[in-house]
Amino acid sequence: MSVFERTKRNRVLRNPTRGNYERDEVYRIVDEALYCHVAFVMDGQPYIIPTLHAREGDTLLLHGSSASRMIRHAEANPLCVTMTLVDGIVLARSAFHHSINYRSAVLFGNGEAVSDPEQKMDALGRFTERLMPGRWNDVRWPDRRELKATGVIAMPIESASAKIRSGPPVDDDEDMALPVWAGVLPLEQSFGALIADPDAPVDLPAPEYLQTYIDSRLDG
Amino acid sequence: MSVFERTKRNRVLRNPTRGNYERDEVYRIVDEALYCHVAFVMDGQPYIIPTLHAREGDTLLLHGSSASRMIRHAEANPLCVTMTLVDGIVLARSAFHHSINYRSAVLFGNGEAVSDPEQKMDALGRFTERLMPGRWNDVRWPDRRELKATGVIAMPIESASAKIRSGPPVDDDEDMALPVWAGVLPLEQSFGALIADPDAPVDLPAPEYLQTYIDSRLDG
Repeated sequence: MSVFERTKRNRVLRNPTRGNYERDEVYRIVDEALYCHVAFVMDGQPYIIPTLHAREGDTLLLHGSSASRMIRHAEANPLCVTMTLVDGIVLARSAFHHSINYRSAVLFGNGEAVSDPEQKMDALGRFTERLMPGRWNDVRWPDRRELKATGVIAMPIESASAKIRSGPPVDDDEDMALPVWAGVLPLEQSFGALIADPDAPVDLPAPEYLQTYIDSRLDG
Repeated sequence: MSVFERTKRNRVLRNPTRGNYERDEVYRIVDEALYCHVAFVMDGQPYIIPTLHAREGDTLLLHGSSASRMIRHAEANPLCVTMTLVDGIVLARSAFHHSINYRSAVLFGNGEAVSDPEQKMDALGRFTERLMPGRWNDVRWPDRRELKATGVIAMPIESASAKIRSGPPVDDDEDMALPVWAGVLPLEQSFGALIADPDAPVDLPAPEYLQTYIDSRLDG
């Protein structure tokens, strides 16, 4: 079995050479992913934190509470950031060739704390817009206290790679005649019905950009 | 904004004390997640790999190509494994209180290579059954060469924690009257239509356990 490790007959964009990678392919995955996982090291122990990200050119912006371990530790320390999009379960005739169709990006770099209030506000706008395009101009922006409570890390992307598996299972020739159904079960993102805040003092209609977002994601 | 970092008004199961955690809550997340992210450290640099996992009591089993960096490095080295399930986008009236509803588990331990062929075969059965319950007895099992090409790491779970955010946005009192729609956009897993392998020599019906799996996941 070779889930997440197998790239035979698939596009492999991995290129460990620093600064040399299929940038567009990697950035498409970075920009499609709703969130990422960040790894950092403390005293030899790795930690992984799921968090929200945004990309500004070749810099990845990461986000968390100012008090969080990740934010406090990310500055000037090596990070690894991964985005993983899972597209389907690949069912082969042999256990060994079972797999997952996926697209993943891995980014490396050192974190730098963003402390300038204007840059921080700009980053928070980007995070909000990534979570829901159109939202930033609809909501109350962070005040000074909130800006202070929010940590933003900028990670210049030093190297990155993408791994993609797509398509049907690839079985050995001698297994093709086995009486086993083989194929792919596609995994898709869908949305439940909107749940308005039950504590809302008055009923407001859901904004148009919300439906636009849902439609755009379902088309993808 | 406080995506993935905020736990106010939510159950917090994190407890950094080794061996002392809300085991059932953590294991429910571990067992529901289709895959995990594993972090390990090489020369001070963290790496994250998405991979398939299975749980056997208090031991986590991880899987990869024997040749992969993760498998070669995981033995006797500290690992961090995270499972993240995302349930919804939380839209508050203030940018600061935007969040994500999610359930995540973080597990720590040292990896141990599983080399005994019988134990390895048992682990591969578990991985296959996690990917698709009912599949293992339907497919060709790994032969000696395939067993050798597959790396299995057992990680006794030394400590673990869960973080869960659920429910509506939590805005500051003074923001409640803002004319901004607030609430949750639920994110759900769905499935596309099965895609049979176009290279199949004969058309076979999809097995019953596949539909059972789809139905069970949609009910959840």
